[in-house]
Amino acid sequence: MNWSWVMSLHEINKEALEIELEKSLTFWEDLSSNDKTRIIDNTYPVKYKKGESIHGGDSDCIGILLIQTGGLRTYILSEDGREVTLYRLTPGDVCVLSSSCVLSNITFDVHIDADFDSELLIINSDVYSDLAANNLYIENFTNKEAVARFSDVMWAMQQILFMSFDKRLASFLLDEISRDGSLEIHMTHDQIAKYVGSAREVVSRMLKYFASEGIVTLQRGGITILDKARLRQIVGLI
Amino acid sequence: MNWSWVMSLHEINKEALEIELEKSLTFWEDLSSNDKTRIIDNTYPVKYKKGESIHGGDSDCIGILLIQTGGLRTYILSEDGREVTLYRLTPGDVCVLSSSCVLSNITFDVHIDADFDSELLIINSDVYSDLAANNLYIENFTNKEAVARFSDVMWAMQQILFMSFDKRLASFLLDEISRDGSLEIHMTHDQIAKYVGSAREVVSRMLKYFASEGIVTLQRGGITILDKARLRQIVGLI
Repeated sequence: MNWSWVMSLHEINKEALEIELEKSLTFWEDLSSNDKTRIIDNTYPVKYKKGESIHGGDSDCIGILLIQTGGLRTYILSEDGREVTLYRLTPGDVCVLSSSCVLSNITFDVHIDADFDSELLIINSDVYSDLAANNLYIENFTNKEAVARFSDVMWAMQQILFMSFDKRLASFLLDEISRDGSLEIHMTHDQIAKYVGSAREVVSRMLKYFASEGIVTLQRGGITILDKARLRQIVGLI
Repeated sequence: MNWSWVMSLHEINKEALEIELEKSLTFWEDLSSNDKTRIIDNTYPVKYKKGESIHGGDSDCIGILLIQTGGLRTYILSEDGREVTLYRLTPGDVCVLSSSCVLSNITFDVHIDADFDSELLIINSDVYSDLAANNLYIENFTNKEAVARFSDVMWAMQQILFMSFDKRLASFLLDEISRDGSLEIHMTHDQIAKYVGSAREVVSRMLKYFASEGIVTLQRGGITILDKARLRQIVGLI
């Protein structure tokens, strides 16, 4: 973690912090005021630059992450070092897999990067772990969040295993333009390959095919969608 | 479900049943005696023949399964009928994904078949669901079991994505030792990753697996090959 981003403690407005914690942690009202104070005192705002690694490899149990702005991408590394995206988290989401030491039944590790410039609140994992061990509401909340990510991973797995690649790429392009409302996607083929769990060559070939069909136009470092209806047709939505 | 296999209720020894339930359900001691009775009265022994479908497709929320003998296989099915095995359950295991209606955060469905001739106890899902909604111990137990299956699925996914990497790495190690006639390879995991076109983490994980199998030993900055024949077997040379 890039600790240079950690604000000094006296900069934190504790009341504002409590409001954020209460919003995201559904067990907040089931905590004693002592436990609330303990969490507040052990939560730190941290900023990450787009593309920066937040969790993965050696940095084992970084803590519970509350996403304030930006977004995170969780992935695993494939055989040849390709990244296979499992799911993305957006503001309001809570990331518990960054603190897998809290969850006794989690025996795998994932990588987490900042998808955009992001502001997070990080709850210290030792403190959280300690509280969860003595409070069933916290333990259940953590397991429940992990189960939600299980659903995300199953979706990604089905995409990777079963969907033909034209569908997968069309689905990705539709997701991207629906996310920010623009018909332009500012990503390289290499970046898209990482997101869809494929190789750059495969992405380039399919995009070229889409371009030849008048579905997209390709520019350096970007793609413009010309025929959204056709993409929806490929995915099987219409 | 093949209801012809369901024994009639008067055949069930309720005391024996309670012993089995207590063994598998870690929340048993946190139940009121009323709730215990309700679960006992709504648990049925069922037998399945090897290969028989237990859950999947239409039979949505069959119930919580306690595996007594035999074993179950959980898999997903593609549109063209391809099966991908996610994990297997053996006697003593509890299957909660057969009752995904209990878990609000589960948004996917799986297929479950009997891997062998199997005897199960099935807890009615409506009753279980109802009790879980009012008992945090039951809810947490169910989420925790689902998280354990999440770990199984991640392992399966990594096997599928990393498949053949063992071959590639074994082939590289054989090449290296045949090159200079020594069984020692003086390279870091990082250097090997570069040669085989992978990531250091992936190389380290597979080398650790090779070491656990007694194929190699790992030293700082090097690897010693213990079982050359086994490497040749992995590559498919013998």
